[in-house]
Amino acid sequence: MQWRKMVLGQPLKTRDVESGQVGVWEGLSILAPDALSSVAYGTQEIIIVLMMAGTAALWYSLPISAIIVLLLSFLVIGYRQIIAAYPGGGGAYVIGRDTIGPNAGLMAGAALMVDYTLTVAVSVTAGVAALVSAFPFLLPWSVPLCVVVVLFMTVVNLRGVRESARLFAPPTYIFIVMVLSMVVAGLLKHDPTAQPFHQDIDPIGLAAVAPMLLLRAFSSGSSALTGVEAISNGVPIFLQPGVRRARTALMLLGLFLGSMFLGTSLIAYRFHIHVTATSKVTVLQLLANDIFGHGIFFYVLSFITMSILAVAANTSFAGFPQLASVMARDQWMPRMFMARGDRLVYQNGIVVLGTVAAILVIVFNANTDSLIPLYAVGVYMSFTIALISLAKKRLSEPHAPGRGATVVVGIFGGILTATVVVISIIAKFTHGAYMVVIAIPLIVLGLRAIRRHYQAVTEMIQIQHFEIKPVASRLVVIVPVASVNKMTRESLSYALSMNPDELVVLHVAISPEQAAQIQERWNKWDLDRRIKLVVIQSQYRSVIRPLVRYIDHFRNLLHPGKVVVVIPEMVVDRFWKNLLHNHMAMTLQAVLLFRRQVVVTVVPFKLDPEQIKTD
Amino acid sequence: MQWRKMVLGQPLKTRDVESGQVGVWEGLSILAPDALSSVAYGTQEIIIVLMMAGTAALWYSLPISAIIVLLLSFLVIGYRQIIAAYPGGGGAYVIGRDTIGPNAGLMAGAALMVDYTLTVAVSVTAGVAALVSAFPFLLPWSVPLCVVVVLFMTVVNLRGVRESARLFAPPTYIFIVMVLSMVVAGLLKHDPTAQPFHQDIDPIGLAAVAPMLLLRAFSSGSSALTGVEAISNGVPIFLQPGVRRARTALMLLGLFLGSMFLGTSLIAYRFHIHVTATSKVTVLQLLANDIFGHGIFFYVLSFITMSILAVAANTSFAGFPQLASVMARDQWMPRMFMARGDRLVYQNGIVVLGTVAAILVIVFNANTDSLIPLYAVGVYMSFTIALISLAKKRLSEPHAPGRGATVVVGIFGGILTATVVVISIIAKFTHGAYMVVIAIPLIVLGLRAIRRHYQAVTEMIQIQHFEIKPVASRLVVIVPVASVNKMTRESLSYALSMNPDELVVLHVAISPEQAAQIQERWNKWDLDRRIKLVVIQSQYRSVIRPLVRYIDHFRNLLHPGKVVVVIPEMVVDRFWKNLLHNHMAMTLQAVLLFRRQVVVTVVPFKLDPEQIKTD
Repeated sequence: MQWRKMVLGQPLKTRDVESGQVGVWEGLSILAPDALSSVAYGTQEIIIVLMMAGTAALWYSLPISAIIVLLLSFLVIGYRQIIAAYPGGGGAYVIGRDTIGPNAGLMAGAALMVDYTLTVAVSVTAGVAALVSAFPFLLPWSVPLCVVVVLFMTVVNLRGVRESARLFAPPTYIFIVMVLSMVVAGLLKHDPTAQPFHQDIDPIGLAAVAPMLLLRAFSSGSSALTGVEAISNGVPIFLQPGVRRARTALMLLGLFLGSMFLGTSLIAYRFHIHVTATSKVTVLQLLANDIFGHGIFFYVLSFITMSILAVAANTSFAGFPQLASVMARDQWMPRMFMARGDRLVYQNGIVVLGTVAAILVIVFNANTDSLIPLYAVGVYMSFTIALISLAKKRLSEPHAPGRGATVVVGIFGGILTATVVVISIIAKFTHGAYMVVIAIPLIVLGLRAIRRHYQAVTEMIQIQHFEIKPVASRLVVIVPVASVNKMTRESLSYALSMNPDELVVLHVAISPEQAAQIQERWNKWDLDRRIKLVVIQSQYRSVIRPLVRYIDHFRNLLHPGKVVVVIPEMVVDRFWKNLLHNHMAMTLQAVLLFRRQVVVTVVPFKLDPEQIKTD
Repeated sequence: MQWRKMVLGQPLKTRDVESGQVGVWEGLSILAPDALSSVAYGTQEIIIVLMMAGTAALWYSLPISAIIVLLLSFLVIGYRQIIAAYPGGGGAYVIGRDTIGPNAGLMAGAALMVDYTLTVAVSVTAGVAALVSAFPFLLPWSVPLCVVVVLFMTVVNLRGVRESARLFAPPTYIFIVMVLSMVVAGLLKHDPTAQPFHQDIDPIGLAAVAPMLLLRAFSSGSSALTGVEAISNGVPIFLQPGVRRARTALMLLGLFLGSMFLGTSLIAYRFHIHVTATSKVTVLQLLANDIFGHGIFFYVLSFITMSILAVAANTSFAGFPQLASVMARDQWMPRMFMARGDRLVYQNGIVVLGTVAAILVIVFNANTDSLIPLYAVGVYMSFTIALISLAKKRLSEPHAPGRGATVVVGIFGGILTATVVVISIIAKFTHGAYMVVIAIPLIVLGLRAIRRHYQAVTEMIQIQHFEIKPVASRLVVIVPVASVNKMTRESLSYALSMNPDELVVLHVAISPEQAAQIQERWNKWDLDRRIKLVVIQSQYRSVIRPLVRYIDHFRNLLHPGKVVVVIPEMVVDRFWKNLLHNHMAMTLQAVLLFRRQVVVTVVPFKLDPEQIKTD
């Protein structure tokens, strides 16, 4: 307990719910890094695809970025309305469930849960990979380092939302300030070689770029928007009024992300930034170098970019448990995801997320590049479901304010996001996207099976007839014994306290000598005649089988009575000593689990010199 | 059960003990392969060491082999007397224990158990390595193949001693016949290039060989005698009269091993066989080639040598469980090693041996060469203890027949075997022999701790005062419930059948709403006033802690009464569904294990549509 308090901090009372919540800026530092970190690679992804058609095609990065920012504004508008409608969080899952149907909600939920798990694995590996490339002697320790980082994040999040906000706010805000400064400086800098945006473009060269390539560039670049949904899932982490704070946070996220992303694309074009899939330096690094030179800004930005990539994982630690708890409330997820821990966080969600991410890192040997294609597909599936659901919802609400605009935003946004899903699956099908196509339906089936089970249980155990009361019945107590000793005496004391109608002390003998020996010791004890000793000879040296046969015999005789098997179990002070005893009690309990009318009472007997002395 | 019968065969009754025993020739085929297989490398080891001093030194292989055969005769004489004295088996362990003291016995026992485990790992790996070198496409499957072979041997031995004898007799006897034929043919063959044994030897060249090298050659060659002790451990596997049969078997083993080993050394010298540590072909192969040419005999002998190496592992499957059962009877080993399985074999010894050997193979990645040095040291330790003990025993028996001869055999043999131990440890200290020096004392300490525990338990649980009887006392039954449902009803029926003095239904509520809800449903039920519902509000959302605190409160009040906690547990039909329930019963049982005066009764509730219908 002491140790637990040291790691997790003082437990919080349930009514202290506010001490587990945060304001707008703290909330943003938890829920924004996933989205903001995309600035580190969003523009780059567009340039890499366009470079396949030559440098002339790079001009397209400007309209493509503009469309992505337009999509971002649709998402911000849409999700702000979803937050208002669902103050309990759950985003795409809840609106999909309520508007289109449970399967749509489940698909969105499953896609997001997969995505959150992948985000942790991929982000942590990316952060550690950057660290290792700076300090190559750490290379053999990549996997353990990743696991330590995941463990660290798990513990910080178990300590509470505030703790994680405090720790991860600095890199987030430093990253925002640095990128925006660079964008402003880059736009204002006087440079004769800078490429003007309104330059005359060679129309033939541009027309030669295949539309499919443009779609792929759009689809790749739109990975910059993953993480925008996190705030809608995590509404309950904000202090009251939570909805207002969450909506403000989302607006701020949209403004930051939009200006950073569009700004980066603009200055990347202005400074002729060319990168390909094999480049060792990033667009952000090239820009820093061109604008501020190879100095302190370059190194700080490189370091802070690496940090924000790792911190992005923290968004999942907020998003996953919140989403899982909402889905558990609807019985689609195991009940344990609803339990709040010592520090009021959904601790099982945090622990499961950390464990699965750590396993992914270990299985993929800290080389999670192959998981990246799986990413965007899941998030954009949930975007599509959220936007289409919102449009459908508004269509059925004739008097909602701003109804027409929302419907347009929902439908047009939904078409754009669905395009990204389709293009991503086609472009990266053989690179892993096929796994999403298989995994998400399988997970949905699993979630449905969970609910089916819970509903079957509820139906089966609920009392229909309150006039049926629990009643006492005839009771037979059977005490299996290995020999006559103090454990036997203790078990018999319990058995006698239960006032049974019949009390049988049962010994299974492997040899006739053993049978004679126990009978002799029993006679020496000279107990009440009503307690009878029954000795069974086991021809096949098994103790359990004759025991169970004897118990079954009583169960049949007794109907509708009850059999209680009272059985002593040795409790040892060192774990290895368990190997020295045969744990008949546990075995018998397991064997009798499926039989009606019979229960097992284990009488633990601790080897305690104190206890013995009193005898 | 059906499946078990198929794998292991029909269970045998305890009185059918004879169907688990064997005659002399069958027994030999189980207990001899370990010793006989040494012929495949004994002579070779001597030649490899002598070759370091040049080919002239090879003449020494003759006297060294003669001394080893002399030592073999001492061992056979000694162990035959040990068998007569200890018909229950246990060899060096029992005679060491009775004559020198428990630590000597334990050292011999520990050394042999380590040796048996290593034998399985090393022999199986050697056999599989030979197979893989013949069929290289199997190379990537070496480890799984080894594990499969170990598993197969485990199962065969679980089926019974006779089954294993039947299966492994052919390679054993074919090997004996082939090697002896080759020896005879080799001695008789007229070959002008053959080296005469009585040839004039260059005395200066011979004198130049360092005595330490000769000792090493002797020590290496004496590995040919490992396995001679197996019969003395396994006396009980022979049909009555077991002692006579075991003594005959040991005499036969000595004759076969002695003539095969000495014969091989003689013809190897005669045919100028030179091998070094890096040679790819063995002495037996070179001899077959020289004597019978590169034909069918060569290939059959190669194949059968490979088989006998693997079959050598089977000797351990007979020796280890027998030895472990003898030591378990003395409480040095866990009690489970005394249990005979369905087929009357000591099944736990077989399973533990197979498991540990499989783990060794996996850990060493089917490359167990580094374990070979550990071998001979352990066996020769046990030889030394056995021979010295025998001498000491005879010294204390003034009227034993053949007393003087036995004392000489014991002392002289003991000095020879002790020499092998010392030389092996020195020569191979850094190659792994240091592990023996560490491991065997550690194992002895472990065995002593096991016995200390058993004796402490016996002392603590045995009844000193038979006038203290088990008595009934005041009984409080506490039924923790999560809600009011059929599981509650079932648990309450058990609780009422126990006729408690007090019955408390306990609910730990996480929220005030939950508390109100259960109270409402409880009132609806309207039970007997004596059954009271107590609702505790948990401020920190833990259910276990308030529950345990409440139970403790009763334990203190009741002294010296008893508390029975009756708690329902959901039993599901699919393993994964266990994740969907929180297993309060199991947790509570674990938490209360160390508390006196309180026991847990788990009421399993199976989700059984049949059961529900009757309601």
